[in-house]
Amino acid sequence: MSGAAHTLGDLAARFGLGLRGDPAARIDGVGTLAGAGPSQLAFFANRAYRAQLPGTRAAAVVLREDDAGTAPGATLISRDPYLDFARIAALFERRARPVPGIHPTAVVDASASVDPGASVGPHCCVGPQSRIEAGAELGPGCVIGPGCAVGAQSRLVARVTLVERVTLGRRVLVHPGAVIGADGFGIAPSSAGWTKVPQLGGVRIGDDCEIGANTTIDRGAIEDTVLEEDVRLDNQIQIGHNVRIGAHTAMAGCAAVAGSTRIGRWCLIGGAAGIVGHLEVCDRVTITAMSLVTRSIREPGEYSSGTPLQPRRQWRRNAARFGQLDALARSVRRGNQEPSDD
Amino acid sequence: MSGAAHTLGDLAARFGLGLRGDPAARIDGVGTLAGAGPSQLAFFANRAYRAQLPGTRAAAVVLREDDAGTAPGATLISRDPYLDFARIAALFERRARPVPGIHPTAVVDASASVDPGASVGPHCCVGPQSRIEAGAELGPGCVIGPGCAVGAQSRLVARVTLVERVTLGRRVLVHPGAVIGADGFGIAPSSAGWTKVPQLGGVRIGDDCEIGANTTIDRGAIEDTVLEEDVRLDNQIQIGHNVRIGAHTAMAGCAAVAGSTRIGRWCLIGGAAGIVGHLEVCDRVTITAMSLVTRSIREPGEYSSGTPLQPRRQWRRNAARFGQLDALARSVRRGNQEPSDD
Amino acid sequence: MSGAAHTLGDLAARFGLGLRGDPAARIDGVGTLAGAGPSQLAFFANRAYRAQLPGTRAAAVVLREDDAGTAPGATLISRDPYLDFARIAALFERRARPVPGIHPTAVVDASASVDPGASVGPHCCVGPQSRIEAGAELGPGCVIGPGCAVGAQSRLVARVTLVERVTLGRRVLVHPGAVIGADGFGIAPSSAGWTKVPQLGGVRIGDDCEIGANTTIDRGAIEDTVLEEDVRLDNQIQIGHNVRIGAHTAMAGCAAVAGSTRIGRWCLIGGAAGIVGHLEVCDRVTITAMSLVTRSIREPGEYSSGTPLQPRRQWRRNAARFGQLDALARSVRRGNQEPSDD
Repeated sequence: MSGAAHTLGDLAARFGLGLRGDPAARIDGVGTLAGAGPSQLAFFANRAYRAQLPGTRAAAVVLREDDAGTAPGATLISRDPYLDFARIAALFERRARPVPGIHPTAVVDASASVDPGASVGPHCCVGPQSRIEAGAELGPGCVIGPGCAVGAQSRLVARVTLVERVTLGRRVLVHPGAVIGADGFGIAPSSAGWTKVPQLGGVRIGDDCEIGANTTIDRGAIEDTVLEEDVRLDNQIQIGHNVRIGAHTAMAGCAAVAGSTRIGRWCLIGGAAGIVGHLEVCDRVTITAMSLVTRSIREPGEYSSGTPLQPRRQWRRNAARFGQLDALARSVRRGNQEPSDD
Repeated sequence: MSGAAHTLGDLAARFGLGLRGDPAARIDGVGTLAGAGPSQLAFFANRAYRAQLPGTRAAAVVLREDDAGTAPGATLISRDPYLDFARIAALFERRARPVPGIHPTAVVDASASVDPGASVGPHCCVGPQSRIEAGAELGPGCVIGPGCAVGAQSRLVARVTLVERVTLGRRVLVHPGAVIGADGFGIAPSSAGWTKVPQLGGVRIGDDCEIGANTTIDRGAIEDTVLEEDVRLDNQIQIGHNVRIGAHTAMAGCAAVAGSTRIGRWCLIGGAAGIVGHLEVCDRVTITAMSLVTRSIREPGEYSSGTPLQPRRQWRRNAARFGQLDALARSVRRGNQEPSDD
Repeated sequence: MSGAAHTLGDLAARFGLGLRGDPAARIDGVGTLAGAGPSQLAFFANRAYRAQLPGTRAAAVVLREDDAGTAPGATLISRDPYLDFARIAALFERRARPVPGIHPTAVVDASASVDPGASVGPHCCVGPQSRIEAGAELGPGCVIGPGCAVGAQSRLVARVTLVERVTLGRRVLVHPGAVIGADGFGIAPSSAGWTKVPQLGGVRIGDDCEIGANTTIDRGAIEDTVLEEDVRLDNQIQIGHNVRIGAHTAMAGCAAVAGSTRIGRWCLIGGAAGIVGHLEVCDRVTITAMSLVTRSIREPGEYSSGTPLQPRRQWRRNAARFGQLDALARSVRRGNQEPSDD
């Protein structure tokens, strides 16, 4: 999409939005409420930024009907301003698509197949029996091991590794540094030390998934690790072997899921949250940031663990009492008001 | 090892297992209890999967004597089914070993030494004074900086970086994206800003260690960061400078150890657990997932911190009380049952 | 700087330190209190190592005036021994600077500009409209996307990715595996699934910043993600889109900051600490390891969350009580000493 301008009238018609203002006004980019210039479009969806709405210099603001009165200028009325802004902003995104073909510095195994409409960038490797489908893009420095498939229109931005037996669906977007299909962490102890458990499975990633930078998804021990379609993983997430994640589930940065856990559809996993192994989490569960899940969750809803942040001196006193909490509760229960310090 | 089949009788003899069933039955792969087909071997070790045992279609199941009665078909009797399954599964693992030699796209410094039996893959770099020993494998895109050594039979899967003064023992396995030997995080403050503390040490990794994908191990400030033999690190682990980890210790994904801490032998560090700097943790300590260690541990055993997951509404009420816990305890102690809200 | 020796007298004069001992004594390296040999210099700053001071074999020790009496040999008296040791140790650091120029295996876009005094290493890619300034060093395997700039004297150690619209100031040091400028995690839900929000901003990194191994810093959705000068980030840190971090702030390994949060100057963020999105943290705030910040912080000081580590059996009893804490507090308040178990 070129950087050409769009009129407010065009945008309203194209995305089915109400327009209050001049349909001929030209928009040549997007901005924040505080930063947008007079030919840019802004949006208002998060009430935390309410104070910025009246003063915006934006040409127009995408917002809910109820908020339209507060905007100083033109408005595009939306039931879901964030979603409609996302769609409009995509018109102003510019990215040069690479020329199809295999860069001369890439190393492609003779048994691999690369569609002529795919692009394999500089310093990539494509291993035996792997398949790169039409319109797929491998940016610089990607390593595709043996037995992998990259579906049509998928994009590996740069320096992505698919280790072994990894299948990506269509339109999958993988950010730099992600490692998909490394050995699951399977080790069996004996008195002499650890014995490695072979990791004979693979990884299957559904259509329209997004995998963040430096995220790792291990391949299964026996069967596959699976992400269903439209799963969205932020950066530095760790997914253990044999995990299954349901469609449309989104996980924020640094979350981690241990092996063999199954997560449902439309879950929202907060940043740095942890889910231990061999659990089941049902559909539409929200886990807040840095919470730890140690049991299966069978009811949709929002879950948390942890304690609130406090000034350290206060926190230290309260934390010390946490270590005596059972004694305190027993003391209260006994009607004995002196907690024992055991 | 090729994909040739093995008979149950062969497997029993080779691994010293009891056999109940037809010794001539042929096994051509492994599977899960739920998924194994009639020519595959399964195992039963984790009681969470007990319900799947009676219905398995597997040709045979590796399990403990006590569980043999529940299996519907042939069994291989083991004292340690997970360990024996690991050994058997290795027979069915297929991996093409790379041809020894240096790939033409690799860049090897004139002062480096690469054993003729080692393999240096596409787009690797081997820096000055570094040494790659017999049978070692560098997969695509590995960067070996100056003064490093990769021991015999070690394998760097792909895109591994050994930054500087890193020595790997024999049979070390390093997964993609791992960075070993980057500068430790040493900075000294002054009123003008931070001054970097030179990181003059290295990293020594013992024989038979495994280092997960995107794990980072910094080199020492003065002396070396050390992993003794058979240490097993999962993905995205962070090991600070001058840490020492004892033999056979295993750490799950996303765990982190701050600088100069010493961890004993045979410890088990749970996922995303943290250990702050300058501590000592003795042998055979288990830390559960997402726990934080802020003091030295001198007694073997299992340790935890954190609070249990709850539905958010309940959690919120309890968490608010955590902030008043000291006041509550004092109130109980005083016999005054009204906690002050200071 | 070569490995030539320095005399104690030279060092004292050069760094303005008091000297007690023979000014002609030659120092050819640095060591720890416990490990330094008789021609090496050690330092004493952290009282945890007090017991090692009297027995040190070091040629001299850098320490505070008050501690000089405890040292067995020569001393260099400093107000800030760690800082002065850092400066002295830099004299003993040896690193071969790469020859300026573009390695023949590197791929540089015709529209990129590389200063003749810069060095672009093996298997690097430099994208369209990007600029590498004088004295900058790109180690092996770095990928510089379109529209990026690497300031003078900055160093990308190896396998660093600058994805798009990333500007590094001068003397910035970036460790292997870091990914700067990947798409921020912006997704808008609808009943049909997630819609990606275009990430149209960039990243600006100030002079003298340091970015650790495998750290990720996303580019802004509309405006830029910003690190002011002299920000120091350890390994595996995650910085969300549109975050702004003030000058001289330092963050320890595995910390994470969610989108649009602003952090002040001279803050210290502990290892694996988390800060949720859309907050403000004022100057000179310290967050201890693994604490979670969920509200803006407007007062300088030290803050914590979490509970102390305990042997698991004790922890389990106390943690169970945490889940009843509100009921317990109500029970105390009511003068009813039987907490209800709702």
